[in-house]
Amino acid sequence: MRTQVVIVGAGPAGLTLAHLLHRQGIDCLVLEARAREHIETRVRAGVLEQPTVDLLDEIGLAGRLRVEGMTHHGIRLRFDHAMHRIDFADLTGAAITVYAQQELVKDLVAARLAGGQPILFDVDDVRLDGVDTDRPRVRFRHDGRERTVDCDVIAGCDGFHGISRASIPAGVLTVHERVYPFAWLGILARTRPSCDELVYARHPDGFALHSMRGPEVTRQYLQVPAGTDLADWPDERIWTGLRRRLGHGDGLDLEEGPIFDKSLAPMRSFVVEPMRYGRLFLLGDAAHIVPATGAKGLNLAVADARVLSYGLGHHYATGRWDELDRYTARCLRRVWQVQQFSWWMTAMLHRIDGTQPFDERLRAAELDRVVSSRAAATTLAENYVGLPFATGWVWRG
Amino acid sequence: MRTQVVIVGAGPAGLTLAHLLHRQGIDCLVLEARAREHIETRVRAGVLEQPTVDLLDEIGLAGRLRVEGMTHHGIRLRFDHAMHRIDFADLTGAAITVYAQQELVKDLVAARLAGGQPILFDVDDVRLDGVDTDRPRVRFRHDGRERTVDCDVIAGCDGFHGISRASIPAGVLTVHERVYPFAWLGILARTRPSCDELVYARHPDGFALHSMRGPEVTRQYLQVPAGTDLADWPDERIWTGLRRRLGHGDGLDLEEGPIFDKSLAPMRSFVVEPMRYGRLFLLGDAAHIVPATGAKGLNLAVADARVLSYGLGHHYATGRWDELDRYTARCLRRVWQVQQFSWWMTAMLHRIDGTQPFDERLRAAELDRVVSSRAAATTLAENYVGLPFATGWVWRG
Repeated sequence: MRTQVVIVGAGPAGLTLAHLLHRQGIDCLVLEARAREHIETRVRAGVLEQPTVDLLDEIGLAGRLRVEGMTHHGIRLRFDHAMHRIDFADLTGAAITVYAQQELVKDLVAARLAGGQPILFDVDDVRLDGVDTDRPRVRFRHDGRERTVDCDVIAGCDGFHGISRASIPAGVLTVHERVYPFAWLGILARTRPSCDELVYARHPDGFALHSMRGPEVTRQYLQVPAGTDLADWPDERIWTGLRRRLGHGDGLDLEEGPIFDKSLAPMRSFVVEPMRYGRLFLLGDAAHIVPATGAKGLNLAVADARVLSYGLGHHYATGRWDELDRYTARCLRRVWQVQQFSWWMTAMLHRIDGTQPFDERLRAAELDRVVSSRAAATTLAENYVGLPFATGWVWRG
Repeated sequence: MRTQVVIVGAGPAGLTLAHLLHRQGIDCLVLEARAREHIETRVRAGVLEQPTVDLLDEIGLAGRLRVEGMTHHGIRLRFDHAMHRIDFADLTGAAITVYAQQELVKDLVAARLAGGQPILFDVDDVRLDGVDTDRPRVRFRHDGRERTVDCDVIAGCDGFHGISRASIPAGVLTVHERVYPFAWLGILARTRPSCDELVYARHPDGFALHSMRGPEVTRQYLQVPAGTDLADWPDERIWTGLRRRLGHGDGLDLEEGPIFDKSLAPMRSFVVEPMRYGRLFLLGDAAHIVPATGAKGLNLAVADARVLSYGLGHHYATGRWDELDRYTARCLRRVWQVQQFSWWMTAMLHRIDGTQPFDERLRAAELDRVVSSRAAATTLAENYVGLPFATGWVWRG
C-alpha cells in the first residue's frame, strides 16, 4: 500500500490538512486511533478565529458553521466590579465564531467520506519507520490485520499524547514547557447564555469564564488548583463560585440549569523545536499546547495544517523541498506569538498564588491599559480574532 | 516664618511644583540641600515626553528647550541584526524632546529667581515636624542659622535618599521594590550623534542605548552586571562593547570621541503606597523609581507636580481637601502604568541571566509583535511619548 502523505490523527489539524491536500490533488491516508463516534462527540474547544473560518469557507467546509455557529463581535472583561467590552468589530473589523470542535470535526469527517476519501478509524499500534530516510513507512493494525503504508511524508496530528512526537529520538527536539499550578473546571449546562458574549472575569477567588455552545447550552469555567478532585465540586458549589466571580449586572445575569458535563483541564504551555524530524512533520497539539485562556489551540492546529499543505503543494508541483524546509520557522513564528498572547491573557486574569504584590500591580496596570487605550485593546483584539495569514505571519520571509 | 507650602528639594518635581503654585497665587518656599551649581550641572535624565513639554510651554518655561532641545519623532529598536523604527509622529502625532535635565533645572531656577521667589540652597539638617497634625512645621539650618517655617502642606521632592520619605513612621507606607541584577554604565562623549534618533539595542551581550545630549555630545549606555567597577571599563572596552551591541549600518555609524563623563546607574523599580502622610505629599523619586529604559523618571516627577498643584489650587480656592485626598490614587494610576511600561521595556531589551528559554522566546515574540503590529507599536509609542493628562489618566475619576 502506498500514498503520498500519511496523516496520523483525525482531529482538526489532520482533517483540515487532508482537505487542503485533496484540493491540490495530493493523496493522503488518515489514520485515527479512536472510533468515529468518539471524535465526533468529545468536548474540546469552541471558538474559531477569523482566519480559521475564512479558510474553511474558502474550501467549502463552512456551510453548517455559518448557520449554526454564533458570530461574536467582542468579548467582555470583568474585574474590580466593572464590566468592559473589547469591541472586535470596531477595533479589527473581524469576529470570532462560537462553534464546538466536535461539530467542526463532524463536518470535516462527513465531507471527506462523502468525497470517497479514506479515514481509517479504530487503528491500533501505529509505528513510524524510516522517518529519517527518504522512504518513510507507517505500520498499523486495522480491522484485525497488520497493514503497511509507504509514503513520502508523515503528518503527526495525533495530539500531545500521540505516538508521532514520541517516535522522534531523544535529543532531536528542544522542549519548552510551563505547567501552571491551576486547572480549569469546565461545565456544560442546559441553559441559555447569561450574556450574549464571552465574559472573562478576574476575581480574588480566581478566574472564571462564561461561554456558550449554542442558544440552549452554556460552557463555563472556574479556575481551581491543579490536582482538584471533581468530587469536591458538587453543582451548587460550582454555581456559587460562578456567581461570585462573574458578578451580575452590566449585561450579565447568570442563568443556572442542569449540568450535564463536568471536567478538569490542566493548564500548560508547551512547544517543541523544531516541528519536524526528517519526513515527519508535527502539527497542532503534537507540537505545542497553549493554556486555554486565549482560545487558540484549535486555531493554531489549523494554522499548522495551512502551512504544511502549502509546503507540500509546492513540493509536489516542483519536486523541491525548500518550502517544506521553512515549515518549522513559519509555524513557530506564529506559535510563539500565540504562546505569548495565551500566557499574557492567563497571567493577567488568573489568581496565581505566590505572585509578588509588585507583579500583581503590574498585571492590574495591564488590565487598566487594555480598557483605557485603544491601541492596547486593539492588540488584544487582533490576537483574539486571529493574526492574519495574509499580511505575513506565515507567507512572508 | 510662615508660608503655605514648603517644597523640600529643587529637582524637576519641586521646581515645577513651585512654578505651578506661583501661577495660582500660592506661596511656597523651596529648600535645597545642595548648591545651585551642583543641581545645575549634575548629569541625570535627558528625554522629555510630550505632556511634560506641553506643560512647560503652557507656563512659559519652554523657551530655551524649544530652541536647544532636539525634537525626535521616533526611536529605533535594533535586534537580531536588523534595525526597526517606531514612528511616534505617525502612530501618535506626538514627539519627545531630548534636553538634559540639568538644562531644564537651570531654566526653572532662573525663572523662579528672576521672579523674586525664594529658593534656599545649601540648606542643612531639614526636619519635618507635626506632619500628622494640622500645623506642620519645617526646621532647617541655613547660612549658619536655625530656621523654622510653619506651613499648611509639605511637598517632599527630595528624591529616593531624601529625608521626606524617611520622616514617615514605619508601618505607614507599603513598599514595592524590585532590584535588577544589572546596571547601566553611562558615558558622555564629545562626538556628534551616530544616529539621528535614540537606538535601543538588544544583543546577546546585553542591552545598549545610543542617545545624545546635543549636536556635539553623545550619551550612551551599556548594560553591565550590578556591582561593576568602573575601573574595569577603560574607554576602549566601552567603545568595543558599544560597537558590538549597537552594530552598524541602517542609519547608525558609531562615532567615537573623547569620553568626559563615566558613571554607573543601578536599575530599580520602587513604589510606595500611599504617596501621602498627613500634610506631607511625596513626589517624584521620593515616592517611586523606574528603571531608566523607558526614560520616564523625570516625566513622572513632573506629572506628580501637576496633580499636586491641581489639588492645592482647589484646596486654597475652596477650603476643601477632597481633591488632595485623591492625590495618591491619581498619581498611582499613572505611576503603575509607567512602572509596567518601564519594566516591560527593560525585560524585553536586557539580557537577564537565569531567564528560562521559554521566557526568552516570549520576550522575542513581544519584540516581533512590536515591529509587526501597528497596534503593538502604538502601545509602545503612546507610552514613550507620554500618556496624555487630558484624556483621563489623571483628571478623570
